[in-house]
Amino acid sequence: MTDLPAILAQITQEMADLPESGKSADYIPELACIDPDQFAIAVVTADGTLHTAGSADQPFSIQSVSKVFALALALGQVGDTMWQRVGVEPSGQRFDSILQLEQEKGRPRNPFINAGAIVVTDTLLKGCTPREALGGLMRFVQEAAEDDTLRIDPSVAQSEIATGARNFALAHYMKSHGNLVHEPDLVLGTYFHQCAIEMTVAQLARAGRFLADLPDGSKLVAAQRVRRLNALMVTCGHYDGSGDFAFRVGLPGKSGVGGGILAVAPGRASIAVWSPGLNVYGNSLRGTLALERLTTLTGWSVFG
Amino acid sequence: MTDLPAILAQITQEMADLPESGKSADYIPELACIDPDQFAIAVVTADGTLHTAGSADQPFSIQSVSKVFALALALGQVGDTMWQRVGVEPSGQRFDSILQLEQEKGRPRNPFINAGAIVVTDTLLKGCTPREALGGLMRFVQEAAEDDTLRIDPSVAQSEIATGARNFALAHYMKSHGNLVHEPDLVLGTYFHQCAIEMTVAQLARAGRFLADLPDGSKLVAAQRVRRLNALMVTCGHYDGSGDFAFRVGLPGKSGVGGGILAVAPGRASIAVWSPGLNVYGNSLRGTLALERLTTLTGWSVFG
Amino acid sequence: MTDLPAILAQITQEMADLPESGKSADYIPELACIDPDQFAIAVVTADGTLHTAGSADQPFSIQSVSKVFALALALGQVGDTMWQRVGVEPSGQRFDSILQLEQEKGRPRNPFINAGAIVVTDTLLKGCTPREALGGLMRFVQEAAEDDTLRIDPSVAQSEIATGARNFALAHYMKSHGNLVHEPDLVLGTYFHQCAIEMTVAQLARAGRFLADLPDGSKLVAAQRVRRLNALMVTCGHYDGSGDFAFRVGLPGKSGVGGGILAVAPGRASIAVWSPGLNVYGNSLRGTLALERLTTLTGWSVFG
Amino acid sequence: MTDLPAILAQITQEMADLPESGKSADYIPELACIDPDQFAIAVVTADGTLHTAGSADQPFSIQSVSKVFALALALGQVGDTMWQRVGVEPSGQRFDSILQLEQEKGRPRNPFINAGAIVVTDTLLKGCTPREALGGLMRFVQEAAEDDTLRIDPSVAQSEIATGARNFALAHYMKSHGNLVHEPDLVLGTYFHQCAIEMTVAQLARAGRFLADLPDGSKLVAAQRVRRLNALMVTCGHYDGSGDFAFRVGLPGKSGVGGGILAVAPGRASIAVWSPGLNVYGNSLRGTLALERLTTLTGWSVFG
Repeated sequence: MTDLPAILAQITQEMADLPESGKSADYIPELACIDPDQFAIAVVTADGTLHTAGSADQPFSIQSVSKVFALALALGQVGDTMWQRVGVEPSGQRFDSILQLEQEKGRPRNPFINAGAIVVTDTLLKGCTPREALGGLMRFVQEAAEDDTLRIDPSVAQSEIATGARNFALAHYMKSHGNLVHEPDLVLGTYFHQCAIEMTVAQLARAGRFLADLPDGSKLVAAQRVRRLNALMVTCGHYDGSGDFAFRVGLPGKSGVGGGILAVAPGRASIAVWSPGLNVYGNSLRGTLALERLTTLTGWSVFG
Repeated sequence: MTDLPAILAQITQEMADLPESGKSADYIPELACIDPDQFAIAVVTADGTLHTAGSADQPFSIQSVSKVFALALALGQVGDTMWQRVGVEPSGQRFDSILQLEQEKGRPRNPFINAGAIVVTDTLLKGCTPREALGGLMRFVQEAAEDDTLRIDPSVAQSEIATGARNFALAHYMKSHGNLVHEPDLVLGTYFHQCAIEMTVAQLARAGRFLADLPDGSKLVAAQRVRRLNALMVTCGHYDGSGDFAFRVGLPGKSGVGGGILAVAPGRASIAVWSPGLNVYGNSLRGTLALERLTTLTGWSVFG
Repeated sequence: MTDLPAILAQITQEMADLPESGKSADYIPELACIDPDQFAIAVVTADGTLHTAGSADQPFSIQSVSKVFALALALGQVGDTMWQRVGVEPSGQRFDSILQLEQEKGRPRNPFINAGAIVVTDTLLKGCTPREALGGLMRFVQEAAEDDTLRIDPSVAQSEIATGARNFALAHYMKSHGNLVHEPDLVLGTYFHQCAIEMTVAQLARAGRFLADLPDGSKLVAAQRVRRLNALMVTCGHYDGSGDFAFRVGLPGKSGVGGGILAVAPGRASIAVWSPGLNVYGNSLRGTLALERLTTLTGWSVFG
Repeated sequence: MTDLPAILAQITQEMADLPESGKSADYIPELACIDPDQFAIAVVTADGTLHTAGSADQPFSIQSVSKVFALALALGQVGDTMWQRVGVEPSGQRFDSILQLEQEKGRPRNPFINAGAIVVTDTLLKGCTPREALGGLMRFVQEAAEDDTLRIDPSVAQSEIATGARNFALAHYMKSHGNLVHEPDLVLGTYFHQCAIEMTVAQLARAGRFLADLPDGSKLVAAQRVRRLNALMVTCGHYDGSGDFAFRVGLPGKSGVGGGILAVAPGRASIAVWSPGLNVYGNSLRGTLALERLTTLTGWSVFG
């Protein structure tokens, strides 16, 4: 094993030296004012050790990284019937695109674009209230991270409800095709709260261990399902920049507009990075670069 | 290690028992009359052993599997300047789709759809004749397979030239955007011959060893480039069915309409399957199922 | 002048003899149960005479025909600033399509597709309540028809609010691009009531006189604006069947999914037809045929 | 009747005073060097009088205006079977767009976009050579204009063949869907020569009389067919700017990238304008403005 602490320190320094950091998400008022230069990275290795560098204790809004947890939980509840309502193909479009919903009759391409994640949240609401559904999701994430202190930031959720017209359009459109069971207001109220989960990179890296198939990892999710989640993260985890992420980083990963990315090197490590400045695809600019450096320096790519 | 010969025999039997086999590609007259039920599989493992089952000595037209070899060779010649002319993102469209070329000003989404592969062939023609370019490609494939007997079937190439109007449209369209250096007739004459390379699964599995990073594998291509080729095969190797292949099989792979698929389990194996009947995406129906069974039975998925 | 009463009687008989009548709009429950075979036609000529045939006293829901009145009224209020928010080009897509809104950043192609009409209604709400806006629209239509008895059917409006998810998607999507001033619920509440105006063909033909530039017509709208409304009706009045309507009928016209069509022969006549069965474009099947027969028999095409 | 000579003189002066003139078509080398400020207008009225203003004796390349003559001739040969191969709906896309061909399986939206016009030319080649087909077309245009001196400029045709990759893509794409009978090279050789017909505005206005249904007009084409040609010119004659042209000018018209526009006021006049500078849609900027002024000053709009 290479000297991981030294590698993380080196990467953190490289990121601090980068001339550009991207721009924080500007369409969610609560996120727009966050300093885009911040950076943190955390790695849990196969022996359970946690390594961190940068602002590893700074909580951030995980946003779309939550889609992985919601999908993992929902698959446990509805199984493969999920795939009747949502596909497993990369969309090749922006995260909030609506045009494929028209071309494909209300069925989202995959569960990691907004439309697909709204369907996943809709399944979590089956037979329960938004509060109960969110409670179930929080218990899943807390168990994954072995951390009962994880919480949702309600001010971020409210900020998104007030400005989330694009997501309301997606929900109403799917409803018009019969692919939303509950009322759009109810589903999106739940969805925006799910996106507003707050975590540090240390917490997020720990929460991702179940995807990394670590020797002593919790068996929250069956191995075959984990493989499928990881496959989806490779092909669809970074929207229309998924190919670029696979090409450069070589790991399953899921990004959020809060600047966080969760990535896993199966059998080796669960990794979380955070830097709020985004690239053109809406993924963390420095976070992606940091992961590219990490797999280059460690040889952790799943592709050889 | 599991008992690979037994696994391959079991899979071959399962495929023979399948009620459906798909339909052979009907738009290339030379391929349309091939019995879609045929099946073969070959695996070269890390110790260099070759295992086969089914019609492993039956040569077939590798068609789009050739795109991997052409890209590997072209990257060796032009390096990362390739990515100025072609992207690395899944297209989400059929293999011969033209509409994204209009939306994206003549730049193909990736090198594994037809438009992108035509650009790759265009780069191979730099400073040489079609005969020389094809000679260079054949030497590359022969060296990869350690087999000087590999050849092109000219009757298949002629059949495609006569019926390849869709590909001519793609070439002319890219030319109109300045993204084709040589004349469409020249590039497509070369491209169709490249697609008409004939191989058995045994030859194809051997030719794919350089992608599998096998301990004793030839170092035809540098490790970082191999990782990127494998990343592209995962996100783009099966056209608009790439997500489905990653989800079910969990390996980098590239299919051809002749019914062949080359897949690699990095560090473990290079695998070739062949069955001419195609699924809705234009990928081998039984070939995909066989690979899904293989990774299930061996645990070779790159995703955990 | 040809014998108009005889022509209308002949057309009515021809329509009754047609083997097919199309299918009533099935996505608005209140309209789905209406007998699609019904037919009525009314013509007001240059001398002010009203001729009718068929079920001319049967009120029906004018639906999207209301878009002409709403646009005429709104242009009187906001003038050419309207065209900053909505275009004047045919969409080439279905009436309720959302994909161009994504491609064109929330600006509808024209005011006669649903998205564009919702923007028009949004302008009518400037500085007033939905009730006041609807009051203003009803006064405009009543004055145009010289008929104070015209009313809105609230049960149809309620039926549409309950099932109008597609229109809610359009409104939220435009709001996300800043092209909706008022809340989607408010705008669509108004919009659905506007669509639920009830009229007979006799009333509708009278209401359309201002567009026909009849010698004794009311001057509700200035001549240049009338010409532009008529131009829009020719290029955009029948959604993705506008070209077909111009080709076959040769008159400016606007259809509604209730089965009504208003058409005008400038200087000659204002014409209304009604038959609830729809063709593939969502326009009245028999209504379109009847108008085609009318212009063939009278020579009223604007195209020579 | 208003004082037409004075109106034409006034318009010509207004155009000369305009600060902007647009840009000459730059993708056809032979046209790129033409001064965009030039302007000419010609009107043939119902009594057969020809009025001109500006550079009325300057021949120019009529380009896509030829699509009207080719369609009129082809409809005389194949009748309504034409509409099995090409539609009558506005495309809402640029003149050389290919994406709808993919979505609509090789059937162009209408005969006035490039793809549709190529199909029309393909029908003209039935049973004859390109030379014979062009001979037939030239006889039709010469008869319409009553002018045997009309000719094709072969250097413009050659220039387009050399640079017409986009049109070759369209032709090959339609061939791949079986919607091209003859070889792309043959059809496009004919098509580019047809586009290279040279005329002055005076000649073009005379050639358009058959569309204007003038009292003493030649009966080259039956009245019902003329009405349909005019309908198509209104809905499709200016590509994705057709709605704008109808809205502002209010006449059936067809533009060419050479800067010419033919427009007709049925029963009143056949009008030709020419100014090489183009607007964003690829239609003559000053030509469109001049026609807008003409219908405003004469009241010749077909819309009231």
